Amino acid sequence: MTTVTPKILPATTSATNPPLLISELLESGVRMAGDNQIVYRDLSRHSYTRFQERVHQLAHLLTTQGVQAGDVVAVLDWDSHRYLEAFFAIPMIGAVLHTVNVRLSPEQVHYTMEHAEDAFVLIHPDFVPLLEPLQERLPLVHGYLLCQDEPSELNTTLPLVGEYEALLAEQPTHYDFPTFDENAVATLFYTTGTTGNPKGVYFTHRQLVLHTLTEASTLQAPGFELLNRDKVYMPITPMFHVHAWGVPYTATLLGATQVYPGRYEPEMLIKLLVTEKVDFSHCVPTLLGMVVGAEAIDSGEVDLSGWKVLVGGSPLTQALSRRAWELGIDTRSAYGMSETCPLLTADILPQDINDADFDTQLPWRCKAGLPIPLVHMQVVNEAGEPLPHDGESVGEVRVRAPWLTQAYYKETERSEALWQDGWLHTGDVATLDARGFLQIRDRIKDVIKTGGEWVSSLELENLIAQCPGVAEVAVIGVADDKWGERPAALVVPSDLNAPPESDEIQAFLTQFIEQGKINRWALPSFIRIVDEIPKTSVGKLDKKRIRQDV
Amino acid sequence: MTTVTPKILPATTSATNPPLLISELLESGVRMAGDNQIVYRDLSRHSYTRFQERVHQLAHLLTTQGVQAGDVVAVLDWDSHRYLEAFFAIPMIGAVLHTVNVRLSPEQVHYTMEHAEDAFVLIHPDFVPLLEPLQERLPLVHGYLLCQDEPSELNTTLPLVGEYEALLAEQPTHYDFPTFDENAVATLFYTTGTTGNPKGVYFTHRQLVLHTLTEASTLQAPGFELLNRDKVYMPITPMFHVHAWGVPYTATLLGATQVYPGRYEPEMLIKLLVTEKVDFSHCVPTLLGMVVGAEAIDSGEVDLSGWKVLVGGSPLTQALSRRAWELGIDTRSAYGMSETCPLLTADILPQDINDADFDTQLPWRCKAGLPIPLVHMQVVNEAGEPLPHDGESVGEVRVRAPWLTQAYYKETERSEALWQDGWLHTGDVATLDARGFLQIRDRIKDVIKTGGEWVSSLELENLIAQCPGVAEVAVIGVADDKWGERPAALVVPSDLNAPPESDEIQAFLTQFIEQGKINRWALPSFIRIVDEIPKTSVGKLDKKRIRQDV
Repeated sequence: MTTVTPKILPATTSATNPPLLISELLESGVRMAGDNQIVYRDLSRHSYTRFQERVHQLAHLLTTQGVQAGDVVAVLDWDSHRYLEAFFAIPMIGAVLHTVNVRLSPEQVHYTMEHAEDAFVLIHPDFVPLLEPLQERLPLVHGYLLCQDEPSELNTTLPLVGEYEALLAEQPTHYDFPTFDENAVATLFYTTGTTGNPKGVYFTHRQLVLHTLTEASTLQAPGFELLNRDKVYMPITPMFHVHAWGVPYTATLLGATQVYPGRYEPEMLIKLLVTEKVDFSHCVPTLLGMVVGAEAIDSGEVDLSGWKVLVGGSPLTQALSRRAWELGIDTRSAYGMSETCPLLTADILPQDINDADFDTQLPWRCKAGLPIPLVHMQVVNEAGEPLPHDGESVGEVRVRAPWLTQAYYKETERSEALWQDGWLHTGDVATLDARGFLQIRDRIKDVIKTGGEWVSSLELENLIAQCPGVAEVAVIGVADDKWGERPAALVVPSDLNAPPESDEIQAFLTQFIEQGKINRWALPSFIRIVDEIPKTSVGKLDKKRIRQDV
Repeated sequence: MTTVTPKILPATTSATNPPLLISELLESGVRMAGDNQIVYRDLSRHSYTRFQERVHQLAHLLTTQGVQAGDVVAVLDWDSHRYLEAFFAIPMIGAVLHTVNVRLSPEQVHYTMEHAEDAFVLIHPDFVPLLEPLQERLPLVHGYLLCQDEPSELNTTLPLVGEYEALLAEQPTHYDFPTFDENAVATLFYTTGTTGNPKGVYFTHRQLVLHTLTEASTLQAPGFELLNRDKVYMPITPMFHVHAWGVPYTATLLGATQVYPGRYEPEMLIKLLVTEKVDFSHCVPTLLGMVVGAEAIDSGEVDLSGWKVLVGGSPLTQALSRRAWELGIDTRSAYGMSETCPLLTADILPQDINDADFDTQLPWRCKAGLPIPLVHMQVVNEAGEPLPHDGESVGEVRVRAPWLTQAYYKETERSEALWQDGWLHTGDVATLDARGFLQIRDRIKDVIKTGGEWVSSLELENLIAQCPGVAEVAVIGVADDKWGERPAALVVPSDLNAPPESDEIQAFLTQFIEQGKINRWALPSFIRIVDEIPKTSVGKLDKKRIRQDV
């Protein structure tokens, strides 16, 4: 990198050159659409104008409870209007929002809350039994604020300071929010790796503002048009997981109607999709599969046509995208990870593909797409050299962008593998094609090496998923004396009473060998029919547990 | 403002937390739409991919000519693909782009080039006669690069280093652009005030990146949908004037097709609008009036329906917006000024207004609109107190945003009135209505005070413009012994051979008194029919010269 000395003029003040703070994201949606709503299940709806007041009230509530700038505040709640208010109020007073992954084991929850040094906790009654046994081992927590949907008595040993709605109602509706350094930490959450304790990932105010502005422009791209003031948005990615991809911030900036479904119960999700006329959601493929597979949808009794879904977390399969299309549901892909805030690519189709028929679009809809503005991306070989954009050369994805976690929180050593040579190493292997579209092939650690050849577990899963009678599939490598490793598959049948035979699936796969899509050595050594496949806390295939089980 | 101490973690590096540099804006459009074109009149067209190479080549060209980071490089060219390349290459090597206002007098051009300390000049042959007599008084300039449309011999005393296209062709197509502080100055230009020398306004890389990201989201808003990858964009606001509202940067980020019309000749503009199928332009009202008033358009011979025009610089009148609508042209308003990069508000109609008929929309289309994200705006009285949002209370507009000029360049004293109490004072008087829409009423210095009452020169112009036979009008205050000041109007008739009588116009205005739109004292003391009204270098009414002339 060259060093140069550009013209820099004498110090600017924070008034003339204001910092990028999350508080800057709150006002524009209110100005554009003060009457648009924030909906919580079938329980409450607030206008944006009222939502803004509630953010100010929550800031007062926290301050009166002794929460100060620099403190870490944990939230354990289902996806709700309260959680959205916490997305804003906690960072806006200079505190750090810790979105606790409530699907972790109690010991892991304790680990993350202790490691984060949480000082104050917002907690839904459903999670009180989780924290009660842990409270003595969380001595830094000086207060618990109860987040109830409806007032009711609760017997608990937790030292509650009161109830969210009741305390909120007592607060003034204007808070004089402070200005501070945009590099202050705004959010913190933990990502579970395959080994060791969860790792903390954190983002600054500056990073979240830049991610939001870029996501806002991206989600409005032509042919995409997922989000704007006139759309209804409902996340089906938990708010504790990378701030639901940052979309609640973006939806607020744009003034979109927002629907928060609480806990993910299929019936409630489908009810809200219909009654609230949801235009746009995002989720992992498993969840989309669950919705389109629900009896009411599959039978055509309930119509979800017009719904647009951005799929990420794991690659969208062609089978699922096609099934959704048959139901009138428009799917696209995006790529990112906890460490990247998360958005890195979006599946904005080239104009000619966008104008083509669905069959032409299908493979493009299942690629991760193009890097969004401000993202630099390379796919590199083991020597770190960028590979050609030929759609075939497979290597690791590495990225630069102004919204990547700077390190794992308080984990200098474990951060060393993340940032190397000035690039964040994603641990994903992928190809880039001639049009610059990224296609994720696998996690580096899930790639199967058999007799010196690489087999993509993802590709194999994608093909097996197309076999009639297969509902879900996971492919892993199993140790083999002769070949080092061999692929093996676990399959959940669509109908547990009439599962496909392992041989039928093998026979189905041979057509892809003839078509040149896979090599003969990629055929699984064995295929096991199972009732269920283990998932991680965010709904991805849990290959670590699958390997242990097999 | 409260002071707090948030959590700031140890130093981030420039790799993990990259600066916001203009180089970041170049790549995404190329990735999204490498085949989309940059068109220059009917003379040339380049793909985005080639455009990117040319930016790298221009960087090499400048470097080989001794241009260094921190140097100021002046451009005197008509709106062109070359100018767009300079928008990127000059700041990207760490130099400062000085967009010279070529409509200033030779003495003012000299003043700005000397004050800016220009070190190198890109010059179109049309401006060679302007600079030849000035060159000895610009001793810091060490080279002039000729920007010709077509190769031809030029006899000049300027020490030319060569011709743009010829020298570009010799350069490598990859330049290793440096990384540096995002607060480095990227652009500089001069704004002409009513008194004294032109004042330099400058913007940093950070400011332009933030302005671009926010403008990108705004121009894609629902009901607005002015700019994206699939649109064709042609500015009709000079590139020397606030970087053509920053839209060339935004269009490049989004990958839109871009058409640069060179010098603004009505025939060429109309030809390009038609042959290139332009979707979106922006301009001052005068220029829109010129286009819709052109014989070919007015007669219906040429069809511009579907063209969207964002109007700024001066308020859009209802008469002009309606005339455009009759021709199928969709107009909206925006507000900003040289000192503000410029975008502050955009006329994104509320959903109910957007769904209504044109007559309902018309007054909204002529308001300046809502503050865009990250902009804070107040309308305040003389004590600096915010006025109610009632659409009636008139006061000065003051703003905060992350893209306002920090000061006038090397003019500490003259900057004092610009920034007061942490707000940039615009010098515009306006109202805010209950929906938060800004409506500019006047420049503070153009407001007419008669017998203790304020009269808006703009409002009176708007009403007189509706009178049959009136093509253009300017209202100023003239000294009056009894009332202090009295309004007076200059009117350019639509037909110079059959001008309206002054009495007819006065009679026409009395209806507005009856309708309560103006007060009796706002009636002009006299109305003078003239052939032409003086304009500033950027096409606004030049009230300073008008006052001198009357």
